[in-house]
Parts: sequence; C-alpha cells; structure tokens
Amino acid sequence: MPIQHIEALRGEQKKGKEQIELAEGSELAAWGAAANLTIVGQPHARLEGADKVTGRARYASDIRLPDQLYGRILHSPHPHARIRRIDTRAASALPGVHAVISSADDLDITFYKEECPLFATTLRFVGDEVAAVAAESEEIAEDALCLIDVAYEPLPFVTDLAAAIEPDVATVHNGSNVLEPKRYERGDLAAGLAAADVVIDQIYTTQTAIHNSLETHGCTARWEGEQLTLWESTQGIFQVREDVAEKLKLPEHRVRVIKQHMGGGFGAKQVVWKPSIMAALLAKRTGRPVQLMLDRRGESLAAGNRNGTQQRVRLGAKRDGTLTAIAVEAHMAIGAYQVGGEASNVVGIYERLYRCPNVRTEQAQVYTNTGPSVAFRAPGYVEGTFGLESAMDELARTLGMDPLDLRLHNYTESDQKKEQPYTLPEALRLCYGRATEAFDWKNVYQTATRAEPVEARGAQAQTKRRGIGIAAHEWGGGGGHPPGYAWVKFNSDGSVDVVTGAQDIGTGARTGLAQVAAEELGLPLDQINLHLGDTATGPYAPTSAGSATQATLGPAIRTAAANARQQLLEAAALVLEEAPERLRVHDGKVFVQGDPDNAVSVAEVTGRMAPQMIQGQGARGPNPQDKTVRTFGVQCVEVEVDMETGEVTLLRVVAAHDCGRIINPTMVDSQIIGGITQGIGFALTEERVIDEASGIVLNPNLEEYKVPTVADIPPITHARVGQPDVAANNTGAKGIGEPPLVPTAPAIANAIFDATGIRMRHAPLSRRRLVERLATQKLKAQQNGGAA
Amino acid sequence: MPIQHIEALRGEQKKGKEQIELAEGSELAAWGAAANLTIVGQPHARLEGADKVTGRARYASDIRLPDQLYGRILHSPHPHARIRRIDTRAASALPGVHAVISSADDLDITFYKEECPLFATTLRFVGDEVAAVAAESEEIAEDALCLIDVAYEPLPFVTDLAAAIEPDVATVHNGSNVLEPKRYERGDLAAGLAAADVVIDQIYTTQTAIHNSLETHGCTARWEGEQLTLWESTQGIFQVREDVAEKLKLPEHRVRVIKQHMGGGFGAKQVVWKPSIMAALLAKRTGRPVQLMLDRRGESLAAGNRNGTQQRVRLGAKRDGTLTAIAVEAHMAIGAYQVGGEASNVVGIYERLYRCPNVRTEQAQVYTNTGPSVAFRAPGYVEGTFGLESAMDELARTLGMDPLDLRLHNYTESDQKKEQPYTLPEALRLCYGRATEAFDWKNVYQTATRAEPVEARGAQAQTKRRGIGIAAHEWGGGGGHPPGYAWVKFNSDGSVDVVTGAQDIGTGARTGLAQVAAEELGLPLDQINLHLGDTATGPYAPTSAGSATQATLGPAIRTAAANARQQLLEAAALVLEEAPERLRVHDGKVFVQGDPDNAVSVAEVTGRMAPQMIQGQGARGPNPQDKTVRTFGVQCVEVEVDMETGEVTLLRVVAAHDCGRIINPTMVDSQIIGGITQGIGFALTEERVIDEASGIVLNPNLEEYKVPTVADIPPITHARVGQPDVAANNTGAKGIGEPPLVPTAPAIANAIFDATGIRMRHAPLSRRRLVERLATQKLKAQQNGGAA
Repeated sequence: MPIQHIEALRGEQKKGKEQIELAEGSELAAWGAAANLTIVGQPHARLEGADKVTGRARYASDIRLPDQLYGRILHSPHPHARIRRIDTRAASALPGVHAVISSADDLDITFYKEECPLFATTLRFVGDEVAAVAAESEEIAEDALCLIDVAYEPLPFVTDLAAAIEPDVATVHNGSNVLEPKRYERGDLAAGLAAADVVIDQIYTTQTAIHNSLETHGCTARWEGEQLTLWESTQGIFQVREDVAEKLKLPEHRVRVIKQHMGGGFGAKQVVWKPSIMAALLAKRTGRPVQLMLDRRGESLAAGNRNGTQQRVRLGAKRDGTLTAIAVEAHMAIGAYQVGGEASNVVGIYERLYRCPNVRTEQAQVYTNTGPSVAFRAPGYVEGTFGLESAMDELARTLGMDPLDLRLHNYTESDQKKEQPYTLPEALRLCYGRATEAFDWKNVYQTATRAEPVEARGAQAQTKRRGIGIAAHEWGGGGGHPPGYAWVKFNSDGSVDVVTGAQDIGTGARTGLAQVAAEELGLPLDQINLHLGDTATGPYAPTSAGSATQATLGPAIRTAAANARQQLLEAAALVLEEAPERLRVHDGKVFVQGDPDNAVSVAEVTGRMAPQMIQGQGARGPNPQDKTVRTFGVQCVEVEVDMETGEVTLLRVVAAHDCGRIINPTMVDSQIIGGITQGIGFALTEERVIDEASGIVLNPNLEEYKVPTVADIPPITHARVGQPDVAANNTGAKGIGEPPLVPTAPAIANAIFDATGIRMRHAPLSRRRLVERLATQKLKAQQNGGAA
Repeated sequence: MPIQHIEALRGEQKKGKEQIELAEGSELAAWGAAANLTIVGQPHARLEGADKVTGRARYASDIRLPDQLYGRILHSPHPHARIRRIDTRAASALPGVHAVISSADDLDITFYKEECPLFATTLRFVGDEVAAVAAESEEIAEDALCLIDVAYEPLPFVTDLAAAIEPDVATVHNGSNVLEPKRYERGDLAAGLAAADVVIDQIYTTQTAIHNSLETHGCTARWEGEQLTLWESTQGIFQVREDVAEKLKLPEHRVRVIKQHMGGGFGAKQVVWKPSIMAALLAKRTGRPVQLMLDRRGESLAAGNRNGTQQRVRLGAKRDGTLTAIAVEAHMAIGAYQVGGEASNVVGIYERLYRCPNVRTEQAQVYTNTGPSVAFRAPGYVEGTFGLESAMDELARTLGMDPLDLRLHNYTESDQKKEQPYTLPEALRLCYGRATEAFDWKNVYQTATRAEPVEARGAQAQTKRRGIGIAAHEWGGGGGHPPGYAWVKFNSDGSVDVVTGAQDIGTGARTGLAQVAAEELGLPLDQINLHLGDTATGPYAPTSAGSATQATLGPAIRTAAANARQQLLEAAALVLEEAPERLRVHDGKVFVQGDPDNAVSVAEVTGRMAPQMIQGQGARGPNPQDKTVRTFGVQCVEVEVDMETGEVTLLRVVAAHDCGRIINPTMVDSQIIGGITQGIGFALTEERVIDEASGIVLNPNLEEYKVPTVADIPPITHARVGQPDVAANNTGAKGIGEPPLVPTAPAIANAIFDATGIRMRHAPLSRRRLVERLATQKLKAQQNGGAA
C-alpha cells in the first residue's frame, strides 16, 4: 500500500514542497548590517493606533450583526463533581431565551487531549462548562443560567501541585495525576556533580498566573447555510479554522475565521476553546448570529493559565565558576485537562543557556482539579528561568563572584542540544554588554557596601535597603514558524495592498510588516495597506505564537514585494527605455541608477499598465538547518526594600534583548515595556489563589488578582541591540513578543537578595512572604545578637 | 524627456507585461469539444441560491453597522433651473439629523464628463441632486428634506429627443445639444444604393427605458481614520474604488469596496454615482457609518436609463436579397450629462451583422433635460437591432423572401470592420439552425396562409391573428475583458478557497467560476469556496459588464487551478513514489494513470504537507489579435394579436445563442429567460413617460412603469448551442449576460407585422400605438372596401 510509508517520506516530501514553493524566497539576499534602509528601522507609530485610541477599532466583542443573540456559560461551582441531573426547561422557557445546550443534548463533540465531551457529566474544575444559553441580551442569558437546575454529586478533589504528586490522593482522571515525564540528558550528571567544588541544590516554585488579557476569549458565530463565519479573538485564525472544522465535521473552506484587532492573547488564544464551539452550535440551533464572550470570571477560571511549577535545581561548579553539572526535575500543575497548543517547556532554559557538558532535565505534567493551563508568553521559560537564574545567583554568591562574571564565564556560542552554532553567536554577549553598560552594573556592584558579605549587609538594621540583580535568558521563539505566505498587489495609482493570513495580536505586526513591504518596494509607508486576519481571502500564515509573526511573514512579504518590484522595473524599463537592471525604485519613483533626473513615478507606470495589475507572491522559506535560531536577553534591576513592611519598590529596569534587526524601535520598546510590566506582575503580585478546603478560586477578577498598574511600573531603559541576524532570514529580524517577560522575576529576586540577604525561592515574591521572611531574619538577628 | 513617448510605447509595454504575467496562462490548452469534463457543463444550482431565497444573503441595503445613519437625497423638481438660494438650517436643526450637505458647502468635487460640481447650482433634470441628509432613520432624513428651503429659478428646457435636435431650442449646456457624431464608413454607400434593386428607407425610434433593478443604487460608507470602506451595490468594485479615490483625492489602497450580492445592475452600476460620494462625505462629516440607498423614485429619475434613439435606416439589396448598402444615422437622447462607463453603440450592429461591402453609420449623442443615460444590458445593440432587424424584415417582405433565407443569404464568417475571421465563424449559423429547427420555422412560415401576400393576410377581418417573427444579432461582449486574476488556495483538508476580485452581479458567476476550478482541480464542487467582491483582498478583476465575468475570470481561475494542481501532483508524487507526469487527479483522489487502485486522497496529500499550503495563481491572457471574439444569437417568436383591442399575447419564444461552451446549462437558461423577459418589457410596455409641458417624469415608480410580470412571460425554449469557442480562451466559454435581450423586440415587431400587416417602427410596440394603427387600418380597409 503506497500510503503506509508517508511518515518516512515526510522529511523528503517537505523538502520537495519547499523547492516548489520557495525558489524565489531563497534567492533574496538578507538585509545585512550595512544595508541602506530608510523605512525599516524607523520608529513609525502603529498604523492602527488612531483607530484603537478613538474606539473605532472593532474587537471581537464589538461585532454587531442583525438579529445577534448573546451567549453565556454556566460554569461548575465544584472542583470535582458528577452531574446527577440537569433540567434546562425553566431556562428555555424564559422569554428572550432562544437556546440552551448542555450534557442533556446528544452532541458528538469531544475536547482536550483527554477527548472529554464538550459538555461532560463529570466536572473537573471550578469553571468547567455545564451549559450554554443564547438569549436576546447578555442579561437575559445570565438570568437563564440561574434557572438551570443541576444536581451535582461532589467528588474528592485535589487542587495543589505538591499534594497532587503524593500517592493516595484524589485523582483527576483515571490513573495517576502525574503524567509520563519528558527527559533529556547529555554527559554524565553524577560525574559532573562529583567533579564540582560547589553544589547548589534548591527547590524553586512558581505560581499559577492568569493571562488576564484585557479582551476576554470569545467570538461571534454566524451561519449562512453550511458556511460558518467566526469573528474570534484568536492568535491563530487558521488554527481555529482547522480546529472548528474538525470538531463540527465541516470541510475547512466552509469555516471562515476573521480577526482584525485583539486585546491581548499572551498564548491563551492559540487554540479553539469550548465557548467558540458553543457559539457555533447555538447559532446553528437558533438560526441567528450568536456572540459568546467570556466574562472576567469565566476568563479567569476556564480560559487557561500559566501552570504552577516546582523545580528541584542542582548546579555543580568548580571554584572558578566553571559549570560541571546542571540538573532539574520539574513538576507542572497543568490543571484538569491537556489543552494543546504550544508546549510549556520549563526545563528548556536549563539545557541551553550555559555551557555545561553534564545536563539532565526532567519535567512531568501533573493533573489538578483546577482550570487547564495553556501557553503563557514564553511558556515554561518564565518559570524555568526563575529557577535557573535564581540558582545561578546563589552559586555566584556562594563563590563570591560577580553574578555577571559567572554568567560570562559559562557563555556558549552554540546550541549544545543540536551541537551546532547559533545563527548569531555573539547575540547574548551583546545583550550582556549593552544591559550592564546602560545599568552601570560594574560600578554599582563594586561599590564598597556591595563588596561586603551579603549576609552581613542583609543584617544591617535600616528601614530601607537597595539591591541590584541580573538575569539572562535564551528563547526558542522569535525565529519564526515557517511556512507563511503573502501577496502584494499594486493598484493603478501606485499604492499597494498587501495580503497575508497573519494576525496582529496587538504587537504592532501590521506596522512592522508594512514597513518591510514599503522598504522593499521603495514606496512611502502610507502607500501600503496591509490586510490580515481573514482565512478566506488571505494566504496561510501560522499562529501568532512563539514571537513568530514578524520573523515568519516579514521575509515572505519581502519576497513578495521583491517579486512585484521586479515586475514594476520591467514595466518601467519600457517607459524609460533602459534595461531593468539599471533601474532602482525609491520614494515612489523609478529612476536610472546614476541618472536621478531620468525618472518616472511608480504611479505613472502602474497607471499606464492599468487595468493590468502587478502582483507579487512570496513564501517564507525554512529556517537554516545547520544553525540554530534563538533569541537572547539580559535584564538588570535595582530595588528598594522596606525592611519593616516588606514593600519592594522597583527603582529601575534595564533590558537588552536580541531580536536581530529592529524593524521599528517604537514597537520593540513597547514590547519590552509591556513584557517587563507583565514580568513585574509575575514576580511580585500575580497569583491565582484557591481555597484548598473548597477548591474554589478566590480571586477570579481584576480586583483581587493583582496585575501591575501604571503606578507599579518603574523607569525602564531599553538598551537596544539590533544586530541583524542575517543567517536567520532575509530581513535579519527576529521576534521580541515573549522574551522581555522572561528574566524579570529572577532579576528582581536576585536584587531582593542583594538588598536583604533573603533568598526568595517561591514566586510571586509577595509582600506577605517577604515580610514573614524579614520577621524571621530579624528574630534570628536578635537571637544572634543576644548570643553574641 | 522619457515620459513623453509613453503613448507610443503603450502597445509594446502591454506586451511586455503580458509576458511577465501570463506565461503560464498561455500554455494551457483550451478545453475542446472532445474534452472529458464532468463538472463543467453540468446543471448545478447556484451556490448562493439558498442564501438568497431564505433572506440570508446580505445586499448593500442589508448592511447594519453600529451607529449607522441613513441618508436621503433632495432631487430637483425642475427639468432646468438655477438655485437662487438654499437654506438648510431648519433641516439641520431637526432632532436626529446629523448632517446636511448641499451646494452651500464648498466641495471641490466634480462629476460627469462635463465636470459639473457634485452639488451644482444649475440643475438640468428632474431628479438632479440638490442636497443630501444623514439622520438617525430614513424617515427623519425624509422629513429633513422637506425642511430644506430652496429658491429655484426655472429655466427653459427640452426633454424630447426630436425637439432637442432642432435649432433654436433650449440648450442643456452651453453650445449645441447635439454632440459631435461618431462616423464609420466602408465601401461606397452611394454606389451601393445605386446598385440596389430595392431600397428600404425608414425611421425607427426606441424609447427611454429604466433599468429598474430590484435593488436600487446606493451604499453604506464607513470611515476608519483615513480608510474608507464602501459596501456598494455595484458591478465593478475596482472601478468604484478608482472613481471614489479620485473624487475624494485618496490613494486607492485607502478605499475598500465590498459587494457580495446584488439585486441587478444591468449596466447602470458600472460607475460610481453621486450618492456614493455623498454617503462618504456624510459619513466623514458625522464620524458615523452612513447608508444611502436611493428610493424607487430616485432610482427612476437619477440612476441612469437606456437612451431613447431615433434611427434613419437605409438598406439596399439586389432582387436575390444580396445586400449592396447599409446606412444608419442615429441620434441618442443621453439626458443631461455624459456619465461614462461602457458606451452605448447604437450603430454597431449595422456594421457587422450582415455581409455588405458598402456601409456608412453615424451616431450623435443629444443632450436633453432628463436623467442621464447609462449602459443598459447590451447598450446600443438592443436599440440598433430593433432598427436593423425590423428593416431586414421589411426588406424580406418587399422581396417576397422568407426572412430567414434573406439573413442566411447575407451571412458573414468574418469581422468586416477588422477584416479578420471570427473565432467561431459558424456560431451564428448554428444559432439560426438550432432556433429555427426548434421553432419549426420553415413549416410554420410556409403554411398556405403565410405564403399569401402579407398585406392581404393582414386585412383579414378576424378578432385574433397569429404571426411569427425572427431576428438575429451579434454582440461584442462575452469575449471577456482581460486582464483578470485569481488565486487558488488548498486547505490542509484538501478543500479549496478561490479568491478573485470579481463580482457576482446576480448572474451565477460564483457557481460557474467554481465549476471551472473544481473541474481543473479534480475535486467535487462542494470542496470549492469562491470568494469575490472585495477590492482589499482579491486580485484585480474587471467590471462585470459586457457579459465578461465568466470569460475573463474562468480562464484565470482555470490557470490558477492548473498551477495549484501541478504542485499537488508533485507533492503526491512523493507519497505515491511515482513521477508527477503519471499522476491524475479526479473526484478528490490522486491516482496513477492506468493503475486506479494506486491512489491517495487529495486531503491526505495536503494534510501531510500542512502547514505548507499549495497556492496557485492565474491570469487571464489577452484576447486573440488575429481573430475577433463575438457572440451571436437568433430568436423566433409567435404572437397572437387581438385585432380589436391591440393586445399582443406572446405564444412562445425560441432562443438560440452562442456563448461558446456552456459551463452550466441552468445558469445559461436563467440568463436566456431573464433576458427575454426584459426584452419583452422593452418591446411592449416599458417606457419612461415625461410630461412635455412641465418636464416631469410621470411614472418614476413600479406601478406606472410597466415591467413584465410572471403572467407576461410566454413559454421560452432555449435551444442550446454550446459549441466551445476554443480560440477565444482556454475554457471555450463566452458570456451570455446581455445577448438574450437583444433580438426579442424586433422579432416581436416582425411577428406583429406577420399577424397584422402593421409595421410598428416605434418601440415600445405598445397597445395604445397598436390599437391606433389597427383602427387606422380598419378605416382604410373600410374605405378601400367602400371604394371597391
């Protein structure tokens, strides 16, 4: 049978395909550091900025269709329960209610990797979906939820990660709560530890955090016959199309997913969630469009979170700081279900950040009766870097080394897992240099007080102490997720429409991608209109995750633009009576090289050609196979700690991140500031709190779940790097969406230690925890003082 | 200066461009008569049919946007007047009114070829636009119109074509009402007339007819910053974009025009009309979306019409029927302005339909103080064919020849204007054969009574008489208006999205184009989703006029599909371990030729490739240069005339039309039936009636303007021809949108003559006119009888 060997052929097949698709793309030389660019690299305001600040931009919840109904979901009040009986008759009878669906309906749709029914009769977390209602208004739908009569049989449950690992605990599904671990090893860990002069062996934990995008999950669903359109708040229109088509057993071309603007996703909107399927079902049943957006409580409970972790970390080092061993065993509280999407790789940072021959990592997912986790901006790396970079700081303090020196001492220019160099081996070194220079790390660190033993400094009885911390990271995202495609259309007046199936999830992708098109086409930016966010009309682009959009679509758009530009030059050559090779296009004009007066406007050329239309197409070729594309970053922070109250004030943050060429400095600055802000929340205040006795989430809202406000944001300096990564892709640019959040928390923890002598190993480094530690420290100091 | 010689280079430049764009298209062999097609040629119901009959399909007037306002226009009550004063304060002050614009505003926008202001202070027809209002509802907007205070100074006017030609009449603009005529001549007309044995010399006139699309003109305009989106009821989204961009001084990429469904255009929606610009201005001024649809009165008065004509026709022929001379002098009442768009060519039919060495034609446009005319389904040819084919019938009767024989005797296989053959020289002969065979023309015509002299038969004193008539036509539309472009995207489950910038104006283009894609791709039709009607995301396609859409985009889509199919086969080749050349795709499967068991489904191949996406692109190459693409048709009708009341009952119509290959018989049948129905209206009842004393249109509605109802439609037989025109394009198909309407009126006139002996030379052949002629005939008969 010819189909059986496909798996074996996959590699060859892909290669074959790329040769078909990507011949043009591969011929385009990358923009190097010396490239004379006039639009790329400039700080343009985001193109849709005015729409957003004036309220014109329409998000998923702004969609209003004739006859639109509104959906609401009944969530389980129990962390684990069986539905004995459900009666929706009273809800259905409420005037204004048009449909109620629940486990009483015979829906052949399963969800999650566990393949549970869309409406299960066993509920596994507070927030698990019980029923959904469509009504004339959100208020009526809410009222209807109260009329749904459900008899629950509570079951034993476990919500805490540490507890869930124990034997004889309540199980979330049949079988153990702990899933088969993922393991990696190189070298000989035992030998490495044995060879070490110093070993750090500590446990670090990180909390469950909620994404809390300003815009909740949800969509508006409309059927036109067998054609379904979803206006969905999503990071991946094509992924949603594929998922919805599969769940509703429709061919993909009958599902259209549209998303123009988004109020944040941060990883939680990579996959299709139950509400979208429910909206589609309610719309089908009522014959009317249904908008189903989660409220804030539903968003907090049932739309993903950053999994809590527990990491046992061991570092072995020689006295000069040379790492001999790195080991980590991580457990991740994934909640009640495996959602899918980008995997959370807690141990990845341990495997690559430092040069070390003996490395062993292990991570195991653990079920708990809590809302399922999902990727959250740099999934796994935020958690893992907290552990590794805290431990590295502990190692440095133990060795009496400047933490910066320890890091540079263990610098690696290559990907030790793949045994090949990075595309930009000096990238992290550039980050260290730029960040510490801008921070004046060496001077601040080497002041007299800081040269003293830290424990002694920590024991000083002052009300406020200052300290500094540093952390680095590397990250697999940012290199792009090929393939990705784009079309470039010249209009008859010389203006250009660019079409791609990508999405701008709020990062400024529209602007950065338009800049690439404008640069390659030699047109002013305002002559470009970039269209994205529609599966029906746009060519394929991947999910906006892994900081991928600019690095995936930028090169595709550049290729398409180059293809269109070549056609333009060939047409202009007939007008100017010159060989196309001698022509250049810049600032809307085609001119003869060396003879700038001999020129014709682009509009003149396209106008003479009309109605013939120049159209370029471009594909994003594969990433290099013999080198590894990664992104890197370093952050330095200074804190002031109130030794009485435990209040931590961030005085300043300096960040240097490698994202290859900077396409738009304003956008990158925005990402840095936004990411660090989110990192500050992760470090200090954000935590989902569960009452262990009842399993109830105590803060599913924005009042009691503490995200940073503008008052919490310190001065942030972005020490730009901007070295083009010409081996990565033809624009030399990589993504910067996720990284800025990664090193913030360990840098803060290290600074708190520097200030107080207290090592905070459990995120968030909350005021409650710190004040307890300060009180203990004070008590010990008094006892020591008393003993002295 | 290099730009000055562009005009001279235009031909060369276009050729250069086509080589760039169309290399693939030109290599694709046309589907010949022997091609084994399974989807093309089948009678599929239109894909959007269910949406339309269930009310789901959203037309321009169905658009509902948040905060949408509604616009209304104040039309001039005078045929010619000057605005002395206009005061819009009371209207503006009406609660719910958000903006009023008029000539009091300083708008730098001109309209029509005469470049008159958008709101002129000199009004030139009843219906000319005076002001526009945007309000919370259509009702409030209507009320506001009543509050606009205008002081008009009436001016002398002329509304009648014959009067407008006379000297010393009121002039519509400065200068003569009669514009410079367009002339054509071949051979020597005087010699041709001198050589004739018989000369027909008559004047024929045709009325002004209103398109009366079910859906009126209009749009919904929304601004988002500097970006304008128009949901417009239009035949040409790209044309509207270009026009709007020019008038509002925007680059084209800032204007997006969307149209998904349309309730008829018939030529009147080829260009942008004033209401669309007004909607955009009102939306800009109010900061809210504005929907401005014309009401039926506005539609009748100010949205175009078929120009009335007056044609002096001379035919010279030898006794055997050989034509020696054809001459026509036509005047066309174009109304008050030249709108643009497809030209109405009244004399074209005289220049090509019959073989004749000596031809002279002349047509002059004439201004009248009436609503401007615009293209109307086969513009000019409906009017011209009425004249020519009536005159040919007169000639046949005079010569005592069967009118069919006279036509066949003067058959031409070549384009006498361009002196080159038609791509399908036998096309018209096939039409004559199929139509007359299905009608049984020879038998019916040669019955004993019909062999008698017609005047004698016409004098028979019976209450009801039956007669038959025939008319033929040729038409320049249907060959397509290249260029046109399409993209074909394979989804990961093997389904396909096709994207083109075309529009389906109600003809079934969606379905016919999807059939071409499905056929070439080897997929079932339900695996194809065709997207059109959006300038932002679709590649360029021309205006849907000249029966062009299927013949322009079909070949482009076929080329794009072939391009995608080739990529599919190359990928499948890796799976099946076969050379791509040996693979075929059919019914959703790729199989090895000669080994049907060795197969893989398309979905399997695309699924294994995902996320890589197969995308094909295609362009419609130019029409052949050494042959002329035309379409042809013949209709035979039988009527019954009540000799007392003048009531004409159509007993049956048989139509045979050349549209090359028939892509979808159901769609073509629909076009034939719809076109003939419109032809019957033109022939018998439809006429704009103006009170000559006041210049007021008396029937700007659907009550007093008589379009045929379902009760007026006779049995219509479509005698399909369906001979592929392989020299025209790679699908062998041509358009059929306009032709069916062309020969209907003269065929009816000829049948009325056959029944009654009365030659009706003035359309419409209304009951009033016929009963007057019957009364005169009766009187003469009585007088003759008395004299006998």
